[in-house]
Amino acid sequence: MALDEINRSAVDRLHAAEPVLEDVRPAGEAIPGLTERTVLHAGPPVAWEAMCGPLRGALVGALRLEGLAVTEEDVARLARSGEIALAPAHDLGAVGPMAGVITARMPVFVVRNRAAGNLAFCPINEGIGRALRFGAYDDGVLERLRWFASTLGPALSAAVRAAGGVDLRGIMARALTMGDELHQRNTAATSLFLRALAPHLAAVPLDAGGRSRVFAFLAENDQFFLNLAMAASKASVDPLRGIPGCTLVVAMARNGTEFGIRVSATGDRWFTAPAPVPRGLLFPGFTEAVCNPDLGDSAITETIGLGGCAMAASPAVVQFLGGASVHDAARITRETAEIATSPSPHYRIPALEFEGAPSGIDVRRVVATGITPVINTGIAHRDAGVGQVGAGTVRAPLEAFRKALVALAGEE
Amino acid sequence: MALDEINRSAVDRLHAAEPVLEDVRPAGEAIPGLTERTVLHAGPPVAWEAMCGPLRGALVGALRLEGLAVTEEDVARLARSGEIALAPAHDLGAVGPMAGVITARMPVFVVRNRAAGNLAFCPINEGIGRALRFGAYDDGVLERLRWFASTLGPALSAAVRAAGGVDLRGIMARALTMGDELHQRNTAATSLFLRALAPHLAAVPLDAGGRSRVFAFLAENDQFFLNLAMAASKASVDPLRGIPGCTLVVAMARNGTEFGIRVSATGDRWFTAPAPVPRGLLFPGFTEAVCNPDLGDSAITETIGLGGCAMAASPAVVQFLGGASVHDAARITRETAEIATSPSPHYRIPALEFEGAPSGIDVRRVVATGITPVINTGIAHRDAGVGQVGAGTVRAPLEAFRKALVALAGEE
Repeated sequence: MALDEINRSAVDRLHAAEPVLEDVRPAGEAIPGLTERTVLHAGPPVAWEAMCGPLRGALVGALRLEGLAVTEEDVARLARSGEIALAPAHDLGAVGPMAGVITARMPVFVVRNRAAGNLAFCPINEGIGRALRFGAYDDGVLERLRWFASTLGPALSAAVRAAGGVDLRGIMARALTMGDELHQRNTAATSLFLRALAPHLAAVPLDAGGRSRVFAFLAENDQFFLNLAMAASKASVDPLRGIPGCTLVVAMARNGTEFGIRVSATGDRWFTAPAPVPRGLLFPGFTEAVCNPDLGDSAITETIGLGGCAMAASPAVVQFLGGASVHDAARITRETAEIATSPSPHYRIPALEFEGAPSGIDVRRVVATGITPVINTGIAHRDAGVGQVGAGTVRAPLEAFRKALVALAGEE
Repeated sequence: MALDEINRSAVDRLHAAEPVLEDVRPAGEAIPGLTERTVLHAGPPVAWEAMCGPLRGALVGALRLEGLAVTEEDVARLARSGEIALAPAHDLGAVGPMAGVITARMPVFVVRNRAAGNLAFCPINEGIGRALRFGAYDDGVLERLRWFASTLGPALSAAVRAAGGVDLRGIMARALTMGDELHQRNTAATSLFLRALAPHLAAVPLDAGGRSRVFAFLAENDQFFLNLAMAASKASVDPLRGIPGCTLVVAMARNGTEFGIRVSATGDRWFTAPAPVPRGLLFPGFTEAVCNPDLGDSAITETIGLGGCAMAASPAVVQFLGGASVHDAARITRETAEIATSPSPHYRIPALEFEGAPSGIDVRRVVATGITPVINTGIAHRDAGVGQVGAGTVRAPLEAFRKALVALAGEE
């Protein structure tokens, strides 16, 4: 089969994907291979010595939550000695935003691609600011994670099961016509998800105060849906992994030190480059000097053509680009189409006369044109224990795609 | 003061409006002057003999709900004899969609313009299809209205009061950046409203089944917010009424027989023309021959520059125009700007680089240019008892504006 045919047939699997939220369960029960000593993180593999501050901070918080460590020294010792098993979330079918740390007690969304049958997992979004995923680990951060495990996770589980699952593709398709690009902005998707689940959530046996806190948590976090979009993206693109000859990107992810991609034909191998520092809008009191290099598995949304690749859908996000206009947003999506294989039949963009989001990023086209995907992202403080300092955009580094193309050439 | 100055100063009152939902109460308690024998309807005044089918049907349903009548003959007798007092909803500070029938037991949204202090009222949206406002009055329609009075209204009241009111301008402004034009499409606004109210609604003392039905009702009706947008529009534009020399439109409304406008300087006088039949998409099994002429107070949204006037905000609605594109939607809004006084500082349209919705329709400009506002609308079956048959758009008839201009000229 010719290479273009292989890629086109591969991207059809992506277009056929039907991601459905089926449950919310503790990671230790839901994710095959995740033990009490496993610590998943975002991006390609990274040793403790090379880890950035926010990832170290998230490890401290997670190991405190699990009762495995108290101080940063404990964590360093456990990581160096191999007493905890560090691994990319992608290795176990999961994705995590920013630091992307997932441990056994954390509830995760269980998303099934009902077309192909495969599962993907992502933890619950904590809201903006001081959050574990940005490297914060104070008492407020840990209390919220304990409440996730004790109350929010079980309540969502009961509601999702009562609803018979929640169709994420439908919500994402509608949200894309409502100003979301499903990475930086998930306002519409969060609202639609709450609407879909509300009648079932209203019937979960909790006292009035507990029920009110659950609803308030979903209602007050415009980015709640991001983690569902991530799990849906992972579940949608995973059937494209390991197709001989296929040059499509199946993962883009960052660990705060390195940016990495995985390509279909080259299996689980990562092709990396130093992670660039995002540019964008910073919270008051912070400067570029404190921004950590790019971090998180959330670029799985760009991997399927959403996020920065679907910028034209989201005029509000364009403002993060500094002086950019709605016209510039359309230009970014049209540019991405040059490195993509075909437009999505489901994820359509009103401002482009309902043209589909550019899907199936082809390593060959990236290297040939020099165009790399635009990634929308949060920005973490470079020190452990601080948290989010802003949000912005970054260009995936060309070097990673060049390395992948060299490897692909060697295989053929 | 020069006329242009008068109009600009008047439209500033519109821009200053702060519509807030403060309560949900039975119309008989909330609306000053509404008695047990009052029946409000949409549009300019109309006698029983001249009433269209869906308005007659809605009267039958409403008088059954109130225990005042059983058959259509009872209703005709009560209307002819003056035993019930028919009046335009606008006369008592209220607006109603389609037939717009409001009677004492129906809960209404109580919206205060916190800038000017005035109140406006609108009943709760029933959902699409078989609904009282489209002239249906079967048992299902009446059961839902009884549930509004017994359960939904009091639950919403408790939640709204617990929330300290709900800022409608903020929701409408956000929804306009999320694909709503707030007449034909209220998907985003309904979702944002549910999010704002959900934490409080979750704490209302109801059993699990009752609570679930309340959430499901709000969750399953994309047009739930329309009636809030209408009350907010009415509350926002009412401070412009009765300004000497002001040529701005302060109401556009239809009773299914006539289309009418009110203009600031001419007070409560209606200027009318025969109501045109809307064009649009019909439900399967219906033809244009069964479509009733245009109906409802919902054009109060166009009166403040939303709905059809803000078409550019809502690419999904353009599809009702038949073969029209996103480009056509922008054209409609730009055209409306030619008959408006100034762009809204709050209601902004992303596709037009966040330009404000065209506000303050000037009768002089309408007659000078021949451009009349585009109104997005539902379409009722012309017979009593059937209900909705579709949705589409209509042009306000120029004749009404010409009559108003003649009257304004006579006053100066």
